[in-house]
Amino acid sequence: MSELQRLRDALRDFAAAREWNQFHSPKNLAMALSAEAGELLETFQWLTEVQSRNPSPEALAAASEEVADVLLYLIRLCDQLGIDPIAAADRKMLANAAKYPVDKARGNSKKYTEL
Amino acid sequence: MSELQRLRDALRDFAAAREWNQFHSPKNLAMALSAEAGELLETFQWLTEVQSRNPSPEALAAASEEVADVLLYLIRLCDQLGIDPIAAADRKMLANAAKYPVDKARGNSKKYTEL
Amino acid sequence: MSELQRLRDALRDFAAAREWNQFHSPKNLAMALSAEAGELLETFQWLTEVQSRNPSPEALAAASEEVADVLLYLIRLCDQLGIDPIAAADRKMLANAAKYPVDKARGNSKKYTEL
Amino acid sequence: MSELQRLRDALRDFAAAREWNQFHSPKNLAMALSAEAGELLETFQWLTEVQSRNPSPEALAAASEEVADVLLYLIRLCDQLGIDPIAAADRKMLANAAKYPVDKARGNSKKYTEL
Repeated sequence: MSELQRLRDALRDFAAAREWNQFHSPKNLAMALSAEAGELLETFQWLTEVQSRNPSPEALAAASEEVADVLLYLIRLCDQLGIDPIAAADRKMLANAAKYPVDKARGNSKKYTEL
Repeated sequence: MSELQRLRDALRDFAAAREWNQFHSPKNLAMALSAEAGELLETFQWLTEVQSRNPSPEALAAASEEVADVLLYLIRLCDQLGIDPIAAADRKMLANAAKYPVDKARGNSKKYTEL
Repeated sequence: MSELQRLRDALRDFAAAREWNQFHSPKNLAMALSAEAGELLETFQWLTEVQSRNPSPEALAAASEEVADVLLYLIRLCDQLGIDPIAAADRKMLANAAKYPVDKARGNSKKYTEL
Repeated sequence: MSELQRLRDALRDFAAAREWNQFHSPKNLAMALSAEAGELLETFQWLTEVQSRNPSPEALAAASEEVADVLLYLIRLCDQLGIDPIAAADRKMLANAAKYPVDKARGNSKKYTEL
């Protein structure tokens, strides 16, 4: 069993014990994930990019907590929708390789539609 | 090597080949992750909760793509910050168990600060 | 002078007195706006749609604070970019009227690209 | 009648003509607002702060559209909740002045809880 499957099962048990399935619709979980992504933003919003590459221990701890929240809601959302997140990510990696060929994308942050 | 480590390494190679490390500050990656979380929201914003539990094939495919984008940026962000996402999630699971004891949280969606 | 211009000027004075222009790049303000939008989401994430139409006094007060934060960052961002938010909204209303003709959009929540 | 009230009324008419009140719960409008805030983020995510202060005409036009979307959903949300956005912003300005006294906040981007 992979790490994500282990976390998926732990989240299932956690929600079942608390009778939280009623709240865990994909709609609500997408909201919760996005709210946590907003807290992650807050960690970095007044830092320069350079500062964000060398965060203080406090900023790093805060980012670590928010990343965990995002990941846990993501796993839970995938479970409710029957999505395998690793397979979805693998498909996306392939799609990105086609959208962003090395020779066109090198040193360039443009969206693939503008390359 | 775990699935997330494999994806982490694939993302490293992808970014290095395109000289994208210059763009991949934690600040920028947090923005990109949050923008993808916004696209995930868009998938569900006009659906009822019930509809979101039984999405159309199109909605499910869209959600699957956005979940993949969020996961890939999350892995990349963790790599740039030196965070182990699984360890962070495990710590958060423990913290959540303490914040939301079963007897207080059962059938209740209140925040732990209000339980 | 309109209400938004009055708030714009008050925000200019507020930031100038605190020497905050250095932090108020459009990039950072967009992040702050989005983080506040995330807090707004949090207010509603575990409520049903029906509950969200009849919020508790506490939920209403929380939503009111978050809406204010979003509006203030929006005004500040527009000021830094030289955007007139009312003119931009008027243009968008016209565009939306063209994208969503009454006979096609009636009772339908589909995106204009799918109508 | 103020500019925001004019837009509020135009949005009411727009939604009524399309029978969209059924979709415009505060929960859904908060999601839509946040999704648009995510599109605003996307405009700036790969720009440096300096570049974001001097956006290209294309980036400025994109930001202008996303700002308009956020503002329109914000006005609509306030209307559905009975919130006066200007009064809420005025209250928040007063609260911010108390939280961030000039002598403590000058040149400092820390949150008020850490000042």
